[in-house]
Amino acid sequence: LKQLPEGYKIRPMEPTDYSVLKILEVLTTVGSISEEQFSLQVEEWKLNDRIYNPLVVTNNNDDVVACGMLFVEFKLIHELGKVGHIEDIAVRSDQQGLQLGKHLILALTEIARSKGCYKVILDCDEKNVGFYQKCGYSVAGVEMSIRF
Amino acid sequence: LKQLPEGYKIRPMEPTDYSVLKILEVLTTVGSISEEQFSLQVEEWKLNDRIYNPLVVTNNNDDVVACGMLFVEFKLIHELGKVGHIEDIAVRSDQQGLQLGKHLILALTEIARSKGCYKVILDCDEKNVGFYQKCGYSVAGVEMSIRF
Ligand SMILES: CC(=O)N[C@@H]1[C@@H](O)[C@H](O)[C@@H](COP(=O)(O)O)O[C@@H]1O
Ligand SMILES: CC(=O)N[C@@H]1[C@@H](O)[C@H](O)[C@@H](COP(=O)(O)O)O[C@@H]1O
Repeated sequence: LKQLPEGYKIRPMEPTDYSVLKILEVLTTVGSISEEQFSLQVEEWKLNDRIYNPLVVTNNNDDVVACGMLFVEFKLIHELGKVGHIEDIAVRSDQQGLQLGKHLILALTEIARSKGCYKVILDCDEKNVGFYQKCGYSVAGVEMSIRF
Repeated sequence: LKQLPEGYKIRPMEPTDYSVLKILEVLTTVGSISEEQFSLQVEEWKLNDRIYNPLVVTNNNDDVVACGMLFVEFKLIHELGKVGHIEDIAVRSDQQGLQLGKHLILALTEIARSKGCYKVILDCDEKNVGFYQKCGYSVAGVEMSIRF
């Protein structure tokens, strides 16, 4: 894995990182969220940091160019085991080829390991299986969903 | 869908439902958890009931015969959308054919809908896809995992 480009950093998401929303539009529908709503949500995650661990990647201009979430689920199985869930990985479309996605996945996975999770899971499209395999992940099952 | 058998009920998991652990052994490794540890975990879920919604099915003898979890993830995407995750579905092995699993999935799905989730997701083995399709779910993607 190449290092992050000069001046790029990975850090926790902050309530002032409103530009995250533009980046998430690469992934799916975001809709209209005010700056205040955004800040409140990130604040709430910070108050719940045993569960929610959102990260961003910033470039040499301190602009947010990628983001991702690890949340931790507390279970009974595996002796009160914890499972990390990686969600909402998005990279700004002009930042391809810099391996930002891979850096993010490895950083989120490392947080899960340090918090004592026995595994990390994520759901992806068939077409992204190869990418996640390069990050050390293996196919584990089928994701099913119902939408309201 | 048949009704639940006479005397069977679905209700939230309680701190006294220690026998849940035996039922979860159908699903995977549980390991050694004391009654006190069990109660504390269920109490903690109850304090966090915006997130954790564990249910059990009891029989006409008030024994726990099945269990399942819905937890709710708070996101940015979909206008601060919520996603329900169904986890740790287990049915006592002598209770097959009573559609307890289907009753549980429908009850957990209904909690997610009533809490405003825009979708519910779950991960399963290829061999259980047909069962979840009968519960209204569709294949959505690939589950990937890494184990520590
Ligand atoms: C690893 C990763 O980033 N997976 C994401 C998931 O976290 C996100 O919630 C979903 C949104 O899709 P939706 O808009 O159809 O719910 O897309 C992908 O599955
Ligand atoms: C719908 C459902 O019940 N899925 C379960 C999941 O919730 C559970 O956490 C996992 C345990 O497997 P593990 O012991 O290999 O982590 O098995 C299944 O995927």
